[in-house]
Amino acid sequence: MYDIIVVGAGPAGLTAALYALRANKKVLVFEAKAPGGQILNASKVENYPGIKCISGFDYANDLYNQVKDLGCEFKFETVIRIDENNVVYTNNPNNDDTYKAKAIILAVGVENRKLNIPGEIEFLGKGVSYCATCDGNFYKGKEVAVVGGGNTALEDAVYLSDIASKVYIIHRRDEFKGEDMYLSELKKMPNVEFILNSNVTRINGTDTLESIDITNNDGKETNLKVSGLFVAVGRAPNNEVFTNLVDLNAQGYFESEDGLHTKQKGVYIAGDARVKTLRQLTTAVSDGSIAATVAIREMREN
Amino acid sequence: MYDIIVVGAGPAGLTAALYALRANKKVLVFEAKAPGGQILNASKVENYPGIKCISGFDYANDLYNQVKDLGCEFKFETVIRIDENNVVYTNNPNNDDTYKAKAIILAVGVENRKLNIPGEIEFLGKGVSYCATCDGNFYKGKEVAVVGGGNTALEDAVYLSDIASKVYIIHRRDEFKGEDMYLSELKKMPNVEFILNSNVTRINGTDTLESIDITNNDGKETNLKVSGLFVAVGRAPNNEVFTNLVDLNAQGYFESEDGLHTKQKGVYIAGDARVKTLRQLTTAVSDGSIAATVAIREMREN
Repeated sequence: MYDIIVVGAGPAGLTAALYALRANKKVLVFEAKAPGGQILNASKVENYPGIKCISGFDYANDLYNQVKDLGCEFKFETVIRIDENNVVYTNNPNNDDTYKAKAIILAVGVENRKLNIPGEIEFLGKGVSYCATCDGNFYKGKEVAVVGGGNTALEDAVYLSDIASKVYIIHRRDEFKGEDMYLSELKKMPNVEFILNSNVTRINGTDTLESIDITNNDGKETNLKVSGLFVAVGRAPNNEVFTNLVDLNAQGYFESEDGLHTKQKGVYIAGDARVKTLRQLTTAVSDGSIAATVAIREMREN
Repeated sequence: MYDIIVVGAGPAGLTAALYALRANKKVLVFEAKAPGGQILNASKVENYPGIKCISGFDYANDLYNQVKDLGCEFKFETVIRIDENNVVYTNNPNNDDTYKAKAIILAVGVENRKLNIPGEIEFLGKGVSYCATCDGNFYKGKEVAVVGGGNTALEDAVYLSDIASKVYIIHRRDEFKGEDMYLSELKKMPNVEFILNSNVTRINGTDTLESIDITNNDGKETNLKVSGLFVAVGRAPNNEVFTNLVDLNAQGYFESEDGLHTKQKGVYIAGDARVKTLRQLTTAVSDGSIAATVAIREMREN
């Protein structure tokens, strides 16, 4: 029996653990892959207040050790179900155990949909980015491309047009799913150019990204020299197995009235997987600290 | 003319500046005292995710330099008024200038009410604390006292009773203003002791706090050996001069429907001065990043 079980060892989950451990609670964290979550994809983090520059890996590692040194227990297993009595089941085939705690914090994060083209993984953090707010500033005065057709792609393009010398928006259709407001704004900007009915098919470079290959729907291929490619073709929250506990919105994110409580007593949500305004380290660690504090307060009341 | 003016250079305000600067915006930050705000009072910060241990001063200094290196402009003046056209007036007697920006972020913070007794300033961060969530963990297995009669004092005592070997609650009256729920919980705890009708009158120690003098309302003096004194006699948000822009709740904190927008277009709130669940570095930096991001998005729409 634990005081708090945290599902997901990204920054939100690890911060929830940090706050619970410092309140002298017994904490178990489940992680399906490696501690750190999305931040592991960041080669350089320069927008975390108080740390001028750090790799995403080092940040994740520092935070993991900070929590581990406080006595946190980790299990690298995938949580496959949480039942109506807050019993946690995992995929560990050698283990019939189930786990129970006074409170459970779901911090399961999201995964960025990939283009699945040559060079995408090779140049991740070396020109390929899934977050304009995180990495845009590294492309000051440079030419970049955004690929995607929804609001995220359009917002990313607007954001980048203030920073980069040139922004190409590449979309496989001739119409955008994103809002007209962003679109009409982008059309007014002298440094924004639309490349429609086209797919990015290859990412080229030596140490860092130097150009991308674009294939038009007619089959015509062109090469575009850019320093950065921002991929905004969707994100997939890891929420499917928790629909008994909390409603999902149309995009698959956790809905809740206050962004914290689920439908089930003692189960809380934190981090990128919930519906929220901004998905950044800053907001993830905020979520984690609030979820742990409120969970501890409410487990006392019960 | 600036893109964004930030009022207050605590963690919330500096993070707002960080996000605005990285979006290539021109930013001016006003600070009445020194950059850092409340965190300057923390001798050791161990609950900021990713940094295992840092002094509050070093944290503030690192964040200030992180922002300054991006080209942030600072003015060490007190903002005394923001008018209906978002013009900012300061107390600088040698300066008739006023300042204007497309967006203003109020991150003015709070000040802890002090006991104003001998030793309080001397032992700040060496036994005297104004934040149980921040510093409680430093007193694992030790004896501590909480002074105050409101919800904060009672919540602090509940929080500390899980960590410290003994918690004294000292209150000048014989009844508490705080909620019965906390009180009945505290009465059940074997390691909590009430000292009513009493004031803390002196803090003693050599390098760190060793004991406190308590004076009963009858005039009787006693000495209590404790390692920590948590002062919870109220906080005063620095909000008075902004009541034309945003409503204050009964305790003086900024009210708003979404915790971000004020009554005046283009003016936003962030940090400890607003009504919120938890006042920590984590939630301050979250506020700053959200306020800047939303402000930039909305200034584009206008």
